[in-house]
Amino acid sequence: MIVRKMNLKAKKEDMERIFHPRRLAIVGVSTDGGARGFGIGMLVGLQAMGFEGEVFPVNPKGGSYAGLNFYKKVEDIPGQIDFAIIAVAAKDVPEALEACRKKGAAGAEILSAGFSELATKEGRELEHKISEIADRGIRVVGPNCFGIYCPGSGLTLLPGPDLSRISGPVAFLSQSGGMAIDLAHKGKWMGLNFSKVVSFGNGADLREVQLLDYLTEDDETGVIGMYMEGIKDGEAFFNAIKKATKKKPVVVCKGGLSAAGQRMVVSHTASMGGSRVIWESVLRQVNAIQVQNLQELAEACLAFCFLPPKVFRRLSVIGGGGALGVTACDAAEKFGMEIPALEPVVRKNVEELLPKPGSSGANPIDVANPFVEPKILQKVLHAAAQDERVELQIIVSLLYHYKTMARMLGKPIAQVAPYRELAELLGGVVRETGKPIVAVLANPKRGVDDLDIVEMLALARAEFIKNGLPVFDDLHEAIRAIGHVNTYYEKRIKNES
Amino acid sequence: MIVRKMNLKAKKEDMERIFHPRRLAIVGVSTDGGARGFGIGMLVGLQAMGFEGEVFPVNPKGGSYAGLNFYKKVEDIPGQIDFAIIAVAAKDVPEALEACRKKGAAGAEILSAGFSELATKEGRELEHKISEIADRGIRVVGPNCFGIYCPGSGLTLLPGPDLSRISGPVAFLSQSGGMAIDLAHKGKWMGLNFSKVVSFGNGADLREVQLLDYLTEDDETGVIGMYMEGIKDGEAFFNAIKKATKKKPVVVCKGGLSAAGQRMVVSHTASMGGSRVIWESVLRQVNAIQVQNLQELAEACLAFCFLPPKVFRRLSVIGGGGALGVTACDAAEKFGMEIPALEPVVRKNVEELLPKPGSSGANPIDVANPFVEPKILQKVLHAAAQDERVELQIIVSLLYHYKTMARMLGKPIAQVAPYRELAELLGGVVRETGKPIVAVLANPKRGVDDLDIVEMLALARAEFIKNGLPVFDDLHEAIRAIGHVNTYYEKRIKNES
Repeated sequence: MIVRKMNLKAKKEDMERIFHPRRLAIVGVSTDGGARGFGIGMLVGLQAMGFEGEVFPVNPKGGSYAGLNFYKKVEDIPGQIDFAIIAVAAKDVPEALEACRKKGAAGAEILSAGFSELATKEGRELEHKISEIADRGIRVVGPNCFGIYCPGSGLTLLPGPDLSRISGPVAFLSQSGGMAIDLAHKGKWMGLNFSKVVSFGNGADLREVQLLDYLTEDDETGVIGMYMEGIKDGEAFFNAIKKATKKKPVVVCKGGLSAAGQRMVVSHTASMGGSRVIWESVLRQVNAIQVQNLQELAEACLAFCFLPPKVFRRLSVIGGGGALGVTACDAAEKFGMEIPALEPVVRKNVEELLPKPGSSGANPIDVANPFVEPKILQKVLHAAAQDERVELQIIVSLLYHYKTMARMLGKPIAQVAPYRELAELLGGVVRETGKPIVAVLANPKRGVDDLDIVEMLALARAEFIKNGLPVFDDLHEAIRAIGHVNTYYEKRIKNES
Repeated sequence: MIVRKMNLKAKKEDMERIFHPRRLAIVGVSTDGGARGFGIGMLVGLQAMGFEGEVFPVNPKGGSYAGLNFYKKVEDIPGQIDFAIIAVAAKDVPEALEACRKKGAAGAEILSAGFSELATKEGRELEHKISEIADRGIRVVGPNCFGIYCPGSGLTLLPGPDLSRISGPVAFLSQSGGMAIDLAHKGKWMGLNFSKVVSFGNGADLREVQLLDYLTEDDETGVIGMYMEGIKDGEAFFNAIKKATKKKPVVVCKGGLSAAGQRMVVSHTASMGGSRVIWESVLRQVNAIQVQNLQELAEACLAFCFLPPKVFRRLSVIGGGGALGVTACDAAEKFGMEIPALEPVVRKNVEELLPKPGSSGANPIDVANPFVEPKILQKVLHAAAQDERVELQIIVSLLYHYKTMARMLGKPIAQVAPYRELAELLGGVVRETGKPIVAVLANPKRGVDDLDIVEMLALARAEFIKNGLPVFDDLHEAIRAIGHVNTYYEKRIKNES
């Protein structure tokens, strides 16, 4: 492996120009499908996203698309550029990058593949050239990546013409482009809003260390997610992530922890893996949260975004059915929480509100019936919050049952299920009691005959999110995500005191 | 605890009359919402299911519903009955049960709650009375349960007017009614068809042991799922499940393995829990498959239904993107499989079929592009199957990407995504190569703007199932399910040889 000067700190002003470029070149805008059509795909994507800067497409043959004339060379672009998207054949990348550097670009993302991930001499040498040019003063994201998504400016990942333009506190750094685009899409319906998403692929210049350093200082970023396959400089990474977790939570999914996975890592992003034991102990030591897959990462970020920065040890759980209570207790114990029996007077107040028979005001609270009115549920959660030990409440809503009622009334389920009222009332309970509520919207019905339920629950999720309640598909997953929040803040509070 | 004669073997002819009753009484058909309206709910449910027997509703006040006159007493029903659904107040259950016994019923399901799960003397005594009546010659399912679902006859669980009438090889025994109805609904879209589902609640008479014995001998049942909270007779259970697994796979989800969960179990179904270590070692010893939740149980049953009865150690994985390969290798190693590099000649054949650049014919095979035509994918899987070591193939389909194409063409995605062709061609590959294919239909897009994708994937799932391919949401879950099949057959084949 060729060694280069590593971990050159990224300047804040450069990063601003990279994430919010006013003048952007797209080098390799082929309208005839060359270089896999990435350049033209990005142009289309940026237009669909309403990218706010000026765009300068470059194609040696000239041409035009959607009213934009193509420049034949980077040099032909009038004036300076801030950032460039490079999507030409691998062998032509160094020349294009050097031209962008000379044009004053603070950075460039290189979407092209065909570098060190090929594990050939040529591939490694080409990548080395990129690093050398970068060292001369242009920051590089990639190669072999999907680039940058920044809702604030409208920059988008390679296959992402339809991402959200709403900025938020979640940053995501990913060696894998697929993971980056998947999380960006998941965020859209889960209620995760992003500050910056960076797919950095082979990471010839900017990678985990410099990007972590930048995001640690980035005021827009409140929680950092990472999909890692390998790292180039273990000590620098250790220091960077340790510094980051002092200021904000960092959630890490490490792929390739198996022996077979490690071999794959080498060919995917040409980085070194590392053993499961080392990763687990290092991440624990620096108070980073380790997760097993992208869904768990998304759920952890969701909990970090929606819950106040503290530790929740004692929960109330409101739902229907005895098995749910068993599941809740199993999960709570597994993730270090408890579901204490309510104080007698609180329990009495709760039970007076519930339908009879079959309900229970013990904790978990069994409402026994999926059609308990939102106003009653509001009162139940309000009453349960009066127990001083309860620090957070989880409601497992069985809204999908309203299909039966909708059928009887001959109406669409989205009109019958009182999800909007429920979301608003529960948002009020949180404000009044000061205790967060987490919602679980379960749905065992997903077939072609039940897509009306799926639709209603998508609408319901949006309402809950609007009212400040994080939503999970599953009770076990919700409790696991709360457990991650606890793990992080317990250690952070201990270290600070 | 009151001890009674336990584990009285169920007679096959009684069970036939219970699952396929020709004459069925519903005791407690209240049209004014009494006893939670369960009886009338069941009547409505049975009619919606097209229940094939004759129904005799009973209500002391008389009345009628949907053209059926209510009998005032069980005794007034002309002739014998085969089975009864009892949904009266707990205190009235023994009398109703005794009346059904005298009417010659082979069995009854008692939906009513208010028995030993209350942990009161009265509750326990009432339940003891039920057991005594059962011992005099009527088999009881329940009390405190959702009853029986049998697609063959049209019997349905309490809140289940819309379950499938297609019979299949999966039986499910559940102490929890909620888990029973959830699995029945999941089965409908996952492609699990059921022989019998029994929610047995407190299990005053029939429970795990007798039902397992029955299902072990039931020719219609090919795989048995169980949601257990506790057992009444450890030794009898051990013997019953050991006998069962010699003939067919048994998949067990044990709720309440935590200390807190065990306390909940007592109040939910009044049965004894048992420690995690004991359960895990007992289940391993008897070659039952232990799963952590209902989704994993459903997925394991799916794999047992769709895969031939053998061990699959070496897989090929076909998908897009490098991270997918990393995930595949991690999961394969975790669950005891490998994804071997393809033989050079096979790899060459595969690579000749794939688009360039960015694709890879190593295993995992990276098709590099979500729009590779079904006919090409067919050839790729056909070619990969020529590697003698490949025993099973997994295709991770990125059909959701067709939304981009659909938008460009101005057509609905369900018209553009070639899911039907893909499903048919892959079904053909399985027949020609004799090697099973497992499909993963991933979808990071589930928001209100992307419900067309959700719909297309629901249609796609149905097509894949129709062509004999099991479908999973997620690669890791698919590999886990295959791992359960391996665990079972490896031990079973070893024991038989």
